[in-house]
Amino acid sequence: MQTEEEFRDFILNGHLYYIPHVTIDCAIFGYHAQQLKLLLIKHRNIDNWSLPGGYIKRAEKLLDAANRNIKDRTGIDNLFLQQFKTFGDPDRIQFDKFDKKKWLEDTGLPSWEGNWLINQTISVGFYAITDFSKTRLQTDFITEACAWFDINNLPPLEYDHDEMVQEAMHTMRLHLYHYPIGLNMLPEKFTLSEIHALYETLLGKKLDVSNFPKKLLALRLLKKLDEKRSIGAHRSPHLYSFDKEMYALALKEGLVLS
Amino acid sequence: MQTEEEFRDFILNGHLYYIPHVTIDCAIFGYHAQQLKLLLIKHRNIDNWSLPGGYIKRAEKLLDAANRNIKDRTGIDNLFLQQFKTFGDPDRIQFDKFDKKKWLEDTGLPSWEGNWLINQTISVGFYAITDFSKTRLQTDFITEACAWFDINNLPPLEYDHDEMVQEAMHTMRLHLYHYPIGLNMLPEKFTLSEIHALYETLLGKKLDVSNFPKKLLALRLLKKLDEKRSIGAHRSPHLYSFDKEMYALALKEGLVLS
Repeated sequence: MQTEEEFRDFILNGHLYYIPHVTIDCAIFGYHAQQLKLLLIKHRNIDNWSLPGGYIKRAEKLLDAANRNIKDRTGIDNLFLQQFKTFGDPDRIQFDKFDKKKWLEDTGLPSWEGNWLINQTISVGFYAITDFSKTRLQTDFITEACAWFDINNLPPLEYDHDEMVQEAMHTMRLHLYHYPIGLNMLPEKFTLSEIHALYETLLGKKLDVSNFPKKLLALRLLKKLDEKRSIGAHRSPHLYSFDKEMYALALKEGLVLS
Repeated sequence: MQTEEEFRDFILNGHLYYIPHVTIDCAIFGYHAQQLKLLLIKHRNIDNWSLPGGYIKRAEKLLDAANRNIKDRTGIDNLFLQQFKTFGDPDRIQFDKFDKKKWLEDTGLPSWEGNWLINQTISVGFYAITDFSKTRLQTDFITEACAWFDINNLPPLEYDHDEMVQEAMHTMRLHLYHYPIGLNMLPEKFTLSEIHALYETLLGKKLDVSNFPKKLLALRLLKKLDEKRSIGAHRSPHLYSFDKEMYALALKEGLVLS
């Protein structure tokens, strides 16, 4: 959905082709050059920022719904998304503070008591990691801004999205020990320093400089190439690439990195 | 819910106090003496077994709904439950094979086209581990049996519950590397062999016999007690207990075991 017309139809008839009471929300992490960011959107007439998300179509898989919502709001397509948690506390959206009916009115959209959208929702959280330097963000009729924020400098978030971000970070960092979530964040050939920096940034902590690459090599996730990169006099570190076969297997079955 | 009367009211008026379209399902693992089992229930007039589960009340947290459902169906209270995944594929319940309206009729319950229960559902999966020797199972009007099955010898399961069990196992085993999920499965004082056997059984694989306890000790999760257990001539292994403070911290923040 992009236009005012599409949103009007969504409010009037959405219950026919969307599942009421269930939404998805997405924590999209962005990595580039040792910086970790989070993608946020700002709805019209709401002060706080929030995670991108939306409803699920009746004939749609959850993962497809998440991908469609992210693409609709941000232009990013086909991210590798992972579920992290589902949020369903009855007071997760504080309707005493956020009057959805009034918000629809303020935004010039149809609004009436009992509309299918004005309802308690349970939200399935997905996270993804992408290279933020490669994305082109876009807004729509109800989204006035869409931007990357430094993970250590987030603005106040709407609803229960602060908790969602904490849970997404926690799960992403736990998954880093078991799934090779690096392929899209590194050039095809990279140095051990580069992958070391990626993992340190995503985990938010220092890793043993000699032990860490050894572990990756022991798991046979990396292949040492017969190539070096020249980065100065007497400095030409070896290049590595992911072993695609082992990578695919580890992505499916998990591994133990520690 | 236990009685026919309660189930009749649930079908007639449940949409007023339950959230339509959303359920929870629970994979309850049971451990005792190096055996791993799974709790299954059998509904009247359905051949296959399934995981216990049910709907969520409108003013209820997801976790409380899961606990209430498990207690209703099995008598087990206050399990330490963890979410593992939410299942929402449109064809996860194959309504062409399972006619819910007919099932309600066969079971002597009210049934009509358009009833709130005859609907696509999205289900939030929870898992837990308990000591199966300490549970007392109970049935209700629609549940004719409730039993522990050896994890390696499960009967065919209804709906998408085979996939749920696989995902629950996968997450439980991944969590074992990060959370101390052992407190309720061991006596307060235990030998290294006992905790070693617990982890091997839950992980379904052999662990290095000398390395594994060293890691637990290095994480300061275990305390070596000034006590031994006599199990025969020349055999009196040291006893250990969990360090409750470290245990609580690890449960909250996670750790890296590997």
